[in-house]
Amino acid sequence: MSTYATEKKYIIAVDAMGGDNAPEEIIKGALLAVESNDVEIILVGDEDKMSKYLPTDPLSNLHCVYSYGVVNEDEQPLEAVKSKPKASVFVCADLVKEGRADAFVTMGSTGAAMAAGVLKIGNIKGIERPSLGGPFLGLSPKTILIDLGTSIDNRPSQLLNYAVLGSTFSRVFMGIENPRVGLLSVGSEEGKGNRLVKETYPLLQKSGLNFIGNVEGFDIPLGKADVVVCDGFIGNILMKFSEGLGVSVFDYIRSSGLSDNPTENGIVEALYSMTNFVEHVGGGPLLGLDGVAIVGHGRSKSASVSAAIKLAKTVLNLDLVDLIEKDLNLVRSRLNVY
Amino acid sequence: MSTYATEKKYIIAVDAMGGDNAPEEIIKGALLAVESNDVEIILVGDEDKMSKYLPTDPLSNLHCVYSYGVVNEDEQPLEAVKSKPKASVFVCADLVKEGRADAFVTMGSTGAAMAAGVLKIGNIKGIERPSLGGPFLGLSPKTILIDLGTSIDNRPSQLLNYAVLGSTFSRVFMGIENPRVGLLSVGSEEGKGNRLVKETYPLLQKSGLNFIGNVEGFDIPLGKADVVVCDGFIGNILMKFSEGLGVSVFDYIRSSGLSDNPTENGIVEALYSMTNFVEHVGGGPLLGLDGVAIVGHGRSKSASVSAAIKLAKTVLNLDLVDLIEKDLNLVRSRLNVY
Repeated sequence: MSTYATEKKYIIAVDAMGGDNAPEEIIKGALLAVESNDVEIILVGDEDKMSKYLPTDPLSNLHCVYSYGVVNEDEQPLEAVKSKPKASVFVCADLVKEGRADAFVTMGSTGAAMAAGVLKIGNIKGIERPSLGGPFLGLSPKTILIDLGTSIDNRPSQLLNYAVLGSTFSRVFMGIENPRVGLLSVGSEEGKGNRLVKETYPLLQKSGLNFIGNVEGFDIPLGKADVVVCDGFIGNILMKFSEGLGVSVFDYIRSSGLSDNPTENGIVEALYSMTNFVEHVGGGPLLGLDGVAIVGHGRSKSASVSAAIKLAKTVLNLDLVDLIEKDLNLVRSRLNVY
Repeated sequence: MSTYATEKKYIIAVDAMGGDNAPEEIIKGALLAVESNDVEIILVGDEDKMSKYLPTDPLSNLHCVYSYGVVNEDEQPLEAVKSKPKASVFVCADLVKEGRADAFVTMGSTGAAMAAGVLKIGNIKGIERPSLGGPFLGLSPKTILIDLGTSIDNRPSQLLNYAVLGSTFSRVFMGIENPRVGLLSVGSEEGKGNRLVKETYPLLQKSGLNFIGNVEGFDIPLGKADVVVCDGFIGNILMKFSEGLGVSVFDYIRSSGLSDNPTENGIVEALYSMTNFVEHVGGGPLLGLDGVAIVGHGRSKSASVSAAIKLAKTVLNLDLVDLIEKDLNLVRSRLNVY
């Protein structure tokens, strides 16, 4: 972790080029964040593309570092590290690595953020790849789904790590003392599930975590578990399905002509934000990284960017990285297989 | 297929003991079905448990065949075949096997229905296990998700079969001439996905089906594909997640005190039925079975049971089994790997 963590004012590197609405909404979000939070921001991006969105009068809490290019969603991140070493997300990670920033925030490619984080900042010992997990559904806003798609075809040891990362996150962010960990499956009984679930179950039982067994799709919105553990392939599909549902419900009610009064509009908008919670929260930290990187939604607009920057500050304040490291060591000491 | 298929009035064996609300709601549903459809029904169940729900005056279209016991959700179906050979679902399948019924309908254990179907009726040639697939979301009522959980840890050849089964189902039931087949994944580009998706992709490309590539969770409620193909583990989680969402949204709006007028209640109920579509439809046929078996939701009440019986009649009328067999042969002839 950065040695800056004990200081009062954190410096956050913000990838101005990443995301569907970059750089305009990213810069707007950064401006919102410096106004409302006691943080210092370094905007990282192409000089010519950023210039017209920057304030004409310099702000003491807002700096720029120039980068060259951006890693797109469809690019292979590891190739991009070689071909575009000065792309915005890599420069962000460099700033953290060099101790010039305490955390970085990006709304760009998750794969590029992962590569930047792992190659430049590094993982906590015993973690193979960092993970994204967090609340994704406003109906159960304290339920964390992990992993949301950072890695797929997971092995049992990875799901075990997700359970630890998620538990620490739940304890630190949600204030839940002893988070209930559920393993996502197709039946609640032990032995129901695919190979991965069946092999992960005994690990979780021995982990010392508050493992409540398998949970089903039905249980997620009911908040039956505080941490729902699953392969990133499934987590990603669930998160996007939920988002799509919210959009479709929104359109359905609008087009049905049933929503002509303000109360109903309130319901509809509440439903939208409940099913598009990640947009609302801003993003999530790359869990397992030995430093702080926040990955936001590609569709983020300024409010989400500002929320993501605030989240970076919170993660630093709460010392999440150190706490995760301690929890991982504790679980390791309980398990031979680990 | 049963030789009765050419006759006008079909005979449907109904498992009176399967499901959470058996036998009362099953028998009520059967009575509803004989009233409103031109079908003949054989109720299969324990004599003493059924008797008090049966009409006092005999009906010409309703018969009883007695069975002994029921296979529960948590039982191993293949063990149950040995220990309880006269359980209701097995007797139902026997009736179809012996040509005494044209189809069977059960709201009981899906595993038991599968075992009964496979062991007694058999699969269409080239099909290893039958599959359940169907519309599961009222927001995209013509989009079929397959498989919904009949088998997990699937291989590429199974997903290819799902694509064929789903396409025939879509054409026959939804009236879609050339159904768009999407492979559920975490990105729309070829090459995005887990191992299973990557290996299935080229098979679908060569299949001659109307394969539109990968689709994401977001695309399901938007109806981007007519047939969404996925491992049964994921399909089951998605279906149950959708159901849980509907229930939670219902509770949320009720408890929010926002729904005090009838229009809003209409919205809420519409949302519920849209996300709990399987309950509404009644159930789905076991696709790939060389005969007709309808598996309904365990929570079904009489209206769903009646809908499932009507579905059995429709499947028979449309000659779905023969059409699936033809489509499978066609795709096989196009693929060497098959």
